[in-house]
Amino acid sequence: MPTLPDHATTQHHRQQFPALGNKAYFNYGGQGPMAESALVAMRQTHDKIQRAGPFSNQINGWLQAEGRLTRQAIAAEVGAPEAAITLTEDVTVGCNIPLWGIDWQAGDHILLTDCEHPGVIAAVQELSRRYQLEVSICRLLPELNRGNPVELIAAALRPQTRLVVVSHILWNTGQVLPLAEIVQLCHSHRPRPVWLLVDAAQSVGVLPLDLTALQADFYAFTGHKWWGGPAGLGGLYIRPEILDEVHPTFIGWRGIQVDEAAQPTGWQPDGRRFEIATSDYALYGGLRTAIALQNQWGSADQRYRRICQLSADLWQRLQKIPQIACLCDSPPAAGLVSFQIMADGQPCPERHNQLVKTLEDQGIFVRTLLFPHCVRACVHYLTLEAEVDRLVSAIEQFVAQAAPHSPGSLHKAPAD
Amino acid sequence: MPTLPDHATTQHHRQQFPALGNKAYFNYGGQGPMAESALVAMRQTHDKIQRAGPFSNQINGWLQAEGRLTRQAIAAEVGAPEAAITLTEDVTVGCNIPLWGIDWQAGDHILLTDCEHPGVIAAVQELSRRYQLEVSICRLLPELNRGNPVELIAAALRPQTRLVVVSHILWNTGQVLPLAEIVQLCHSHRPRPVWLLVDAAQSVGVLPLDLTALQADFYAFTGHKWWGGPAGLGGLYIRPEILDEVHPTFIGWRGIQVDEAAQPTGWQPDGRRFEIATSDYALYGGLRTAIALQNQWGSADQRYRRICQLSADLWQRLQKIPQIACLCDSPPAAGLVSFQIMADGQPCPERHNQLVKTLEDQGIFVRTLLFPHCVRACVHYLTLEAEVDRLVSAIEQFVAQAAPHSPGSLHKAPAD
Repeated sequence: MPTLPDHATTQHHRQQFPALGNKAYFNYGGQGPMAESALVAMRQTHDKIQRAGPFSNQINGWLQAEGRLTRQAIAAEVGAPEAAITLTEDVTVGCNIPLWGIDWQAGDHILLTDCEHPGVIAAVQELSRRYQLEVSICRLLPELNRGNPVELIAAALRPQTRLVVVSHILWNTGQVLPLAEIVQLCHSHRPRPVWLLVDAAQSVGVLPLDLTALQADFYAFTGHKWWGGPAGLGGLYIRPEILDEVHPTFIGWRGIQVDEAAQPTGWQPDGRRFEIATSDYALYGGLRTAIALQNQWGSADQRYRRICQLSADLWQRLQKIPQIACLCDSPPAAGLVSFQIMADGQPCPERHNQLVKTLEDQGIFVRTLLFPHCVRACVHYLTLEAEVDRLVSAIEQFVAQAAPHSPGSLHKAPAD
Repeated sequence: MPTLPDHATTQHHRQQFPALGNKAYFNYGGQGPMAESALVAMRQTHDKIQRAGPFSNQINGWLQAEGRLTRQAIAAEVGAPEAAITLTEDVTVGCNIPLWGIDWQAGDHILLTDCEHPGVIAAVQELSRRYQLEVSICRLLPELNRGNPVELIAAALRPQTRLVVVSHILWNTGQVLPLAEIVQLCHSHRPRPVWLLVDAAQSVGVLPLDLTALQADFYAFTGHKWWGGPAGLGGLYIRPEILDEVHPTFIGWRGIQVDEAAQPTGWQPDGRRFEIATSDYALYGGLRTAIALQNQWGSADQRYRRICQLSADLWQRLQKIPQIACLCDSPPAAGLVSFQIMADGQPCPERHNQLVKTLEDQGIFVRTLLFPHCVRACVHYLTLEAEVDRLVSAIEQFVAQAAPHSPGSLHKAPAD
């Protein structure tokens, strides 16, 4: 197993990210920092488009090649064939494509976990209303530190279950679900196999992935979080064997083929059939640059190991602060570390909000989540141990200085 | 009626557009050139996001304000209330939102014109398959120079007609449809009023618009053509009275409201309910800059008058070339001028392709269209008379030098 790049290498590598120069950043799960070279790549695309276009035969051909290169770069990174990749605006669009593309029958059942993103929940609710589907929720959160997610999902499957929607890494607790086992469970379900839609917002760019081996049916992700790509570009993997069983819903010129009279004759033969129309093509080079840069620091395995080292360190140190309770009882298997500030055995949402605001004023960036109400700090391979030190110290100071139920003194404390 | 800005003003104004410096550009209907200031505004947004984020309370609040400012700028330009505007990735998404959001009943009828964009046709076909809808085509093209589009549409309506899909300006012939009359026709249809979905790809940025007065139900547009905004950002206007009768389909966090436990409780109260999730927010400032710049040159009325002056001039001069036949028998009412190269009374698709390639090699940018097969040249208020001269001369040279059915000599001719 190759050793990890040393501190000096990481320090040097970080200098390519303007966002990291003026703060201690722990919001990778919200959005990752962009390298200057990725921003430059985007501007270079715009310059090329203006110079040789903006609309011309030359540019139109070049943009098609840009799309291909981008699907290839993504495919290589997630272990999938290029033809299985659809470029999307974001992870949510990637979830909506299969949700609205399945040939639903009234009475079909969708199983969601209780840790899915509100946008995906709302999409499933509207889908259920339109097609008279049954929806139920599998409660993973109460079982975070004791239950087996595979058994919980198995117990919640029904004969009518058609689709299970899970996150590979839960955005609130940071738990990594045993996806291969869940795939196995779903595909061996009877009377009919169940498809699995994976919200991969928090896993792409974190876990080493081999989607072909994993065999999940739909895997929706974004480039702008852990990959450090630009906001506005993500992707969807669809298992090649089921491509033709999913129908395009939002449809445009990019997804179709036309005859000589410009009449639609069918879909593109691959994942492009779910792409819609004009996008910000400058994002393509930006994302490829971001992916290449990550691989310059280290392999996917190395990056993941570094993330786990750092999150274990952060988790252990947070555990030692008396007023802090981490959601997980054991070191996280990824980069998300969520915790609560406790008083009288209860979490204090107001204190979470105050902490995030106080830290942001100090140049330390974390965020709150609503369910369960908590504070989430994310570590990346880009994170420095000194940043973890700074975060832990600031939290210690916050909880030590200000008593709960005393907002006035709280507000002043950070300035002392 | 205010006079138009003079030649020197336009020359000076054009210097802000890098794309216009090295070519004679006539593909505004494909994509408009971007001003350097719009590109700079986008980079400034990225810099701000990296400096104060990328993910932080401060940036998240600022991005919400950016969205609001952008909807306001669009609303002001099209004569609509801000609440009626949804930001979309492109015009096609703007068409898909109402197409998939209407509460269809089997047997409902959709009427399309024969001049709609293939992407929209394909979306309607898939919609029809899923919901057992009737679709028919109203043939405007054969009647271009004689028929009354309102009467043609009136004759094609059925008792079951629920939606009519038309372009405000037809992207192939450049015909401007009398939209107010079509709205009136549709809304007064019985037994039930018909809704009107307008593909406004070629009209926004060209026609002075007052959407509130126009009363069209859905008006889908893009910023990257005649407005000269960045590709990847467009909008949809929905008539406020019917907002609640259209259901969001592709759904994400931007369109919903949530309770304290992050559970969805309903839609945003306005056009935001159809916005999905993370986008390239840098485009927002880019589009606002582009819109502001157009208004610096002149009002919407002045810009439209200038476009019509130039297209009439181009049309008249093309009419005088013996081998050229313009699709329209009268001067266009907008900026699109489509024409065919004729031989033995028939248009020559191969010659169209050769012409476009030859001109592009000379730095003159036009495009072919497939239906009817033709060449399209677009003039903008940014267009110079000298560019029109150059285009007309190059076409004259092309048709004079190379005989039809002689590809070998054709290929060499432009270099002579």
